[in-house]
Amino acid sequence: MPNKPAPTANGATVKCNPCLSENKTSIRGVVAQLLAMVNPEKQLISLGVGDASSFPCFRKGKDFSDSLLAVVSSSMFDCYPPSYGFPFARSRAVAEFLSKGVKHGIREDSVYLTVGGTQAIQVCLTVLASPGSNLLLPRPGFPPYETACELAGVEARYYDLAPRRGWDLDLSQLRSLADANTAGLVIINPNNPCGAVYSSTHLQQIAETARDLNIPIIADEIYGHMVFGGSRFIPMASFAHLTPVITIGALSKRWMLPGWRLGWLAICDPPGLIKQVKVATEMLMNVTSGPASVIQAAVPGILSDSHEEFHRNVLTVLESSLDALYARIGQIEVLQCHSRPQGSMFMMVEINTTLVFGIENDMDFAEELIREESVLVLPGSVIGLKNWIRIFFGIPADVLRVACDRIESFCKRRQIKSSSIL
Amino acid sequence: MPNKPAPTANGATVKCNPCLSENKTSIRGVVAQLLAMVNPEKQLISLGVGDASSFPCFRKGKDFSDSLLAVVSSSMFDCYPPSYGFPFARSRAVAEFLSKGVKHGIREDSVYLTVGGTQAIQVCLTVLASPGSNLLLPRPGFPPYETACELAGVEARYYDLAPRRGWDLDLSQLRSLADANTAGLVIINPNNPCGAVYSSTHLQQIAETARDLNIPIIADEIYGHMVFGGSRFIPMASFAHLTPVITIGALSKRWMLPGWRLGWLAICDPPGLIKQVKVATEMLMNVTSGPASVIQAAVPGILSDSHEEFHRNVLTVLESSLDALYARIGQIEVLQCHSRPQGSMFMMVEINTTLVFGIENDMDFAEELIREESVLVLPGSVIGLKNWIRIFFGIPADVLRVACDRIESFCKRRQIKSSSIL
Ligand SMILES: Cc1ncc(COP(=O)(O)O)c(C=O)c1O
Ligand SMILES: Cc1ncc(COP(=O)(O)O)c(C=O)c1O
Repeated sequence: MPNKPAPTANGATVKCNPCLSENKTSIRGVVAQLLAMVNPEKQLISLGVGDASSFPCFRKGKDFSDSLLAVVSSSMFDCYPPSYGFPFARSRAVAEFLSKGVKHGIREDSVYLTVGGTQAIQVCLTVLASPGSNLLLPRPGFPPYETACELAGVEARYYDLAPRRGWDLDLSQLRSLADANTAGLVIINPNNPCGAVYSSTHLQQIAETARDLNIPIIADEIYGHMVFGGSRFIPMASFAHLTPVITIGALSKRWMLPGWRLGWLAICDPPGLIKQVKVATEMLMNVTSGPASVIQAAVPGILSDSHEEFHRNVLTVLESSLDALYARIGQIEVLQCHSRPQGSMFMMVEINTTLVFGIENDMDFAEELIREESVLVLPGSVIGLKNWIRIFFGIPADVLRVACDRIESFCKRRQIKSSSIL
Repeated sequence: MPNKPAPTANGATVKCNPCLSENKTSIRGVVAQLLAMVNPEKQLISLGVGDASSFPCFRKGKDFSDSLLAVVSSSMFDCYPPSYGFPFARSRAVAEFLSKGVKHGIREDSVYLTVGGTQAIQVCLTVLASPGSNLLLPRPGFPPYETACELAGVEARYYDLAPRRGWDLDLSQLRSLADANTAGLVIINPNNPCGAVYSSTHLQQIAETARDLNIPIIADEIYGHMVFGGSRFIPMASFAHLTPVITIGALSKRWMLPGWRLGWLAICDPPGLIKQVKVATEMLMNVTSGPASVIQAAVPGILSDSHEEFHRNVLTVLESSLDALYARIGQIEVLQCHSRPQGSMFMMVEINTTLVFGIENDMDFAEELIREESVLVLPGSVIGLKNWIRIFFGIPADVLRVACDRIESFCKRRQIKSSSIL
């Protein structure tokens, strides 16, 4: 899409990247827009953004700061870190952590430390970009993949997650979307925004499909281990004997340290099928800023086994918030959650727009809701699913109940009376 | 340049970004290559990379850790930072700091916090990229500009810095290189790799030229205030009434905190000529990882006026190292420094290859030097100047003297005897 060049002093123009023109949306952009509409008379409750780090109920047993304090006090980490991260953080911490329960193991020299999961996405997509290439992305999904594709000149092709089949992938659709220029398949598990956690059988089917298509899998496991209700998280790398797996992770979610901006990208490619990807990743990391040295140096402490209490508590609190949310949404006629989340911190909820007046779509819903009730939710169209909303449940159950009260009274006020339908 | 696709299981291929193929060089790549050749019998002295942070002589009065410790202890900064950085760090710290002595001042809402200077470069070049656009870059220069151009699909056009005229820019060459698709002019001041510090008059000439060409200036001032010998550092933003200035900076050099990965990009555009650039920058920052929250929160303390002793000591130590280096290089017949650095931490030295045997070019020189003497220097061809080397002088003067002894005996051993020339 062409953007209007800005005129300069004597009428000439400065052009900007057409991928970054004013009419493009992003989660953060839409959230900022919505926040500007908040009802000044009611306290804001944000169910819009995935950050639970500031709630005291999620901080029980959280002592990661101790690792960082020790590092900073040592004054030994003012220096530039190596391009791919300090070896002791790549190996002892990340490689060991990712290798748990994975057949082939992840080697230190295949782990690259990044500035959060976001940079891992950017690196991975930039590396896989070549003229005419395309990538398979989930819909609904996580928009930074789309933007990274655009900036790298890669075509995004969307496969659908099926709300009525536990948000599973449709393997035959995957096959029909892929062609000789397909550079990879992105899967997010546990899933943002749907809360799905894929079974071992399904993951194996996905890996077999990717193997048949000769494409690597980009496995975004930033919500790894954040599963409840008896679900099990299985790392995609367990299937790396079928096709190469590039795993993306970060301290942002499970460890609730999103502000520390530490993530990773790990290439699990036991038969060495995508050595070129490793070379290109290293070339790119050699000219890119990585995460802060001090944060890297704290990683071994953070990924150690000594934080069980913290992790157990997070899951307990999350699950009780999810219970509250799921029960309450079930009581609101206008909204429907087709499958209860088993992981991550998000739930997708469908709006029955035929039952409400003055609300044409999910964007209207989100705008009117924050205007009247000061509750922020993410409109589904931002993440590829029109007339749905994404609700973040990483907040204390009692606050979530207040939010549900407000959503319920909002929906009731807007609901078309049965009599008027007839 | 096309790269060989890696074969997969059944013969198909995974292609990678052609800008990231194996045969591309980077400073860090070449340095890693050279380090592998070090003479195991002599202790390495690295004059290759710009990081002085670990030498005790540069740490006198360095108490920036206190600011970070206070922040980490508060446990208030686990959360995601806002896309452009915390307002209190953008305003009180960076905007105020950059505004000192600058006519128009830098507004908080025009400052964007980045992951070191490197990300500021990437953001700026990505924003300015549009189909067919080109950028004017200095030669010799800083290679990440070139890579960022390639990745963004922007043509890099090089203007020459003149070694015999204090590394000044040739304004008529600038004019002849620019055309209607030129998106900006990059200048590095104080300069890496040449050590030049541009006069107010020269900066004004550059700004006038850019104004005539209708292009903004990207002013890389990461070595800002690192000047000695009576030179003065003048921020390019002082001339923003002539043409828009995008200033790049970081804590990496003057504060000697390269591992903290905090930089900035500030748009100084008093008449609002490049509003589009601001919009595109914000759009990009909305989908990009910024610097860690904890580091951002320490910025006001770090940029405060209370670290005079530290800054004064750094300059004193740097200048005495420079004195030592400059005097010794002057005694080595094979090498020549045409103008004494007035700032930054680098000196460019020309090799007279006709006076030595077994050394065809700067790369040979660097390889043989580290093989025999365990001294690392950066071959000039990596930064655009063949048969020169770049020497980092941010190391203690006594170590630098040992390095010079070794360089001198290396050159003497390789020098063709006058008799054999005749
Ligand atoms: C699926 C997914 N991937 C990646 C990221 C980005 O990770 P980070 O916040 O560490 O940059 C997020 C963040 O919300 C996410 O939800
Ligand atoms: C001229 C110049 N610009 C930018 C940078 C990158 O800054 P940072 O190390 O903060 O990423 C450097 C680093 O050496 C530099 O020399």
